[in-house]
Amino acid sequence: MILLSDRHLETVTFGEKSRVGRGGMTAKLDAAWTSAEAGIPVVIASGSRPNVLVEVVRGQNVGTLFHRDAPTWVNSLRKSGAREMAVAARTASRKLQGMTSKERTQILYKIAEALEANEEAILEENEADLRAAETAGIAPALLQRLKLKAGRIAQLADGMRAIAAMTEPIGKIISRTELAEGLILDKTTSPLGVLLIIFESRPDVLPQIAALAIRSGNGLLLKGGKEAVKSNSILHKVITEALPASVGPELIGLVRTRDAISDLLQLDDVIDLVIPRGSNQLVNHIKQNTKIPVLGHADGVCHVFVDKDADLRKAKKLVVDAKIDYPAACNAMETMLVHKDLVESGGFQELCDALVAAGVVLNGSKKTAPLLNLPVAPNFHKEYGCNECTVEIVDDVGAAIAHIHEFGSAHTDTIVTENKEAAEYFLKNLDSAVVLHNASTRFSDGYRFGLGAEVGVSTSRIHARGPVGVEGLLTTRWLGRGTGQIVAKDKAIKYTHRQLPIPSSEAAPSENGV
Amino acid sequence: MILLSDRHLETVTFGEKSRVGRGGMTAKLDAAWTSAEAGIPVVIASGSRPNVLVEVVRGQNVGTLFHRDAPTWVNSLRKSGAREMAVAARTASRKLQGMTSKERTQILYKIAEALEANEEAILEENEADLRAAETAGIAPALLQRLKLKAGRIAQLADGMRAIAAMTEPIGKIISRTELAEGLILDKTTSPLGVLLIIFESRPDVLPQIAALAIRSGNGLLLKGGKEAVKSNSILHKVITEALPASVGPELIGLVRTRDAISDLLQLDDVIDLVIPRGSNQLVNHIKQNTKIPVLGHADGVCHVFVDKDADLRKAKKLVVDAKIDYPAACNAMETMLVHKDLVESGGFQELCDALVAAGVVLNGSKKTAPLLNLPVAPNFHKEYGCNECTVEIVDDVGAAIAHIHEFGSAHTDTIVTENKEAAEYFLKNLDSAVVLHNASTRFSDGYRFGLGAEVGVSTSRIHARGPVGVEGLLTTRWLGRGTGQIVAKDKAIKYTHRQLPIPSSEAAPSENGV
Repeated sequence: MILLSDRHLETVTFGEKSRVGRGGMTAKLDAAWTSAEAGIPVVIASGSRPNVLVEVVRGQNVGTLFHRDAPTWVNSLRKSGAREMAVAARTASRKLQGMTSKERTQILYKIAEALEANEEAILEENEADLRAAETAGIAPALLQRLKLKAGRIAQLADGMRAIAAMTEPIGKIISRTELAEGLILDKTTSPLGVLLIIFESRPDVLPQIAALAIRSGNGLLLKGGKEAVKSNSILHKVITEALPASVGPELIGLVRTRDAISDLLQLDDVIDLVIPRGSNQLVNHIKQNTKIPVLGHADGVCHVFVDKDADLRKAKKLVVDAKIDYPAACNAMETMLVHKDLVESGGFQELCDALVAAGVVLNGSKKTAPLLNLPVAPNFHKEYGCNECTVEIVDDVGAAIAHIHEFGSAHTDTIVTENKEAAEYFLKNLDSAVVLHNASTRFSDGYRFGLGAEVGVSTSRIHARGPVGVEGLLTTRWLGRGTGQIVAKDKAIKYTHRQLPIPSSEAAPSENGV
Repeated sequence: MILLSDRHLETVTFGEKSRVGRGGMTAKLDAAWTSAEAGIPVVIASGSRPNVLVEVVRGQNVGTLFHRDAPTWVNSLRKSGAREMAVAARTASRKLQGMTSKERTQILYKIAEALEANEEAILEENEADLRAAETAGIAPALLQRLKLKAGRIAQLADGMRAIAAMTEPIGKIISRTELAEGLILDKTTSPLGVLLIIFESRPDVLPQIAALAIRSGNGLLLKGGKEAVKSNSILHKVITEALPASVGPELIGLVRTRDAISDLLQLDDVIDLVIPRGSNQLVNHIKQNTKIPVLGHADGVCHVFVDKDADLRKAKKLVVDAKIDYPAACNAMETMLVHKDLVESGGFQELCDALVAAGVVLNGSKKTAPLLNLPVAPNFHKEYGCNECTVEIVDDVGAAIAHIHEFGSAHTDTIVTENKEAAEYFLKNLDSAVVLHNASTRFSDGYRFGLGAEVGVSTSRIHARGPVGVEGLLTTRWLGRGTGQIVAKDKAIKYTHRQLPIPSSEAAPSENGV
């Protein structure tokens, strides 16, 4: 909690805003101070926070308290420092953005070296985490994700160098328009600001995300799983110590307490994007508890529709790959939809046999269960995440689309057919983030899509959709260069609105430090 | 409130999801039904809704109630029908999206005709609104915005034809990549889904927004000001009657009650974007009361920085235009920042004199007020919205940027200078949606930027930033066309990741109905 005494007021009046970086606080602060001066305690807190009044009255850790005696209360009311941390990250990110492309990439090469130089210490801390996890009796699958295997540090360092070698993502000109003679408008890419990444178990996510944030000029707040606390701490230490003083270690903050994370999720005025990397439960929890935009997906209920005109040999390979290549992945097939004509022809049976032969447990719908004498699936929105799936029979491509719109999660869906018309109809009319023809749903991934690094897969419709690379960490700015043009009710100016070619040399202006 | 009896359950179990179009409800429904069957009433409601538990316990109109006797309670618990309305709009939008580009544009031409054919009736209803407003003693400024002037209907019809004539926005290929031999991935534009637009007084916003929504293949929910209720009703009637039966009038819903709007703001699972068009108070209220992404800006505190190397003649023209061309606009100048060297040289005095001569009332900072003997501005984040502004002296371009980051609203800011280096430094380092050099802040507008139609100006950092045209109503989908490729742990495939040229003929595939 921030506490003000009269002698602090002025700095805070404006300080608040600089932290927020958006403004609008001063009027509130003026009002608050008037009452505070009169000895009436005032709390400014976000009206969007559930039960905020109840929390304030209970004297909980919410918002900003104003009272002339506030400084004397400070020790009894210390806060998690979440806001200060987020604001420091934004300030540092602006310094990073002020650097040239070359300077930013140098930072990544320096961090790569630091990781390699500290490999031994990092692996020791990771070992300590593993021992603690084993003692705590954590599941073997989780242990696997927690462990930094031999050579992993070298891999991470190389990955960092690869991200450094990417073409400069900041200041790329997307469009150039002549608004009027001598007035040119560019739409350019620019960093989002401050990112909050919440991830589970795997500590190797930390350096990867740090590299992406630095490359895209963003400030970063990281919260890892408690089982990886020692691994994350040393990785964070090594990385921030390699940051130049001109930027400052505050660029990348490591969040250590649950209390801090719930405070951070309230800071929709300082944090621009939250990226949860972990279980559906984690993502759902975050989405329910913040007003900050969330990049991610709650569930991945992907479908493969085998059309009547499918090449069965292809179809069998595709449904098996989509299901068993990595059953726990969000882009794995959960439901196989089959055209009704394939029932008589025996194709439906062949497809089911292929899945069973690959070790897949099948569940039926009310229609298909009796046919193959299968157990009935609980419902059509089931994400199994294991070698199990639902099979259903549909009348045609239109019925397949209707089924997916109704029960899917708009993540990734595939049609298998040799009929171009049916394929194009499916591609045009299915409203999913990724729609494929004759290719496995498993291709729906940032690396496989050639995006270089993957930030995550988004099922939200705004900003970024489907597999997201670095561009998901960028926004745009409009930069106009004129020669004294005024509007004067649009009478003083003759609009030309000509699209101009984008000079490739200028495609990354920060390249030359401008 | 939706009520279920056992005989309704099955339809609702899946119906819920089809309405939601996202899924995730079935597990909850199963659980709810088990208890409901046992005679225990169950309510499913959004955990993100403030005080939701209190509301439920009070028996308020929240979420979905399950009980075997529910149907007998239905009359005592009728709902605003907000969800049904939103779901119907989404369903209709998918029909619209299934049409060819030609079919969609035909709808707009048909609506344009309908508006002209019904001009008389529309103006009559608008007259009635005006009389009621006058009787109610509404402010003249508001009356002005409420009035549909002579020839306005013809203008609106022409605007609709202009939007119809735009190049097809849907299905545009943004990038084309060969992932592997025979596997081509396109990133294409596609509609967002369902938009909720909340606007005040001006009824002519309704047909404009309707045209944009139809052109971009989106469903639309509209809520106008109560003072324009008759004008909005007839405009909505004329437009929806002109929609083809194959799409249905549900594509555009007119929201008539405050109750409905607060229900709609809870539907973050069906509505994809909210666009409030009106006062800062309106926008702030919306942002505070929904989890749906909001496109808009709360405040517009724009700056003009006059550098030491400014051409004073230009500078005077620019600050005057930025302030007085339309003082109530969000892109009007609220603060003039002046380089300290211009104080001695007398330039600062000239600039102030020019503003005063143009009828602008000046307010000073603690630094400038004594200098010119001006009243002290309440604070540096003041949006006057009238012929009044704040003036401040800063040390250099860096100090100007720091001032704007601290007190601005990241909307639109201008530097006036003949020094290219200072200009480029300002353009690169100032983190605002629109940053201009030697041009009036008033250019920050969709029409002036050549975006055709303006959806609004966004100060949010994700999705769309600054003046937003039709592209703000679009998202992207990834469409992949393969020949049977599987992943098989990435061993079965050789990635090429070649960027391919985008065939212009295919730039708008819906053009030819595919």
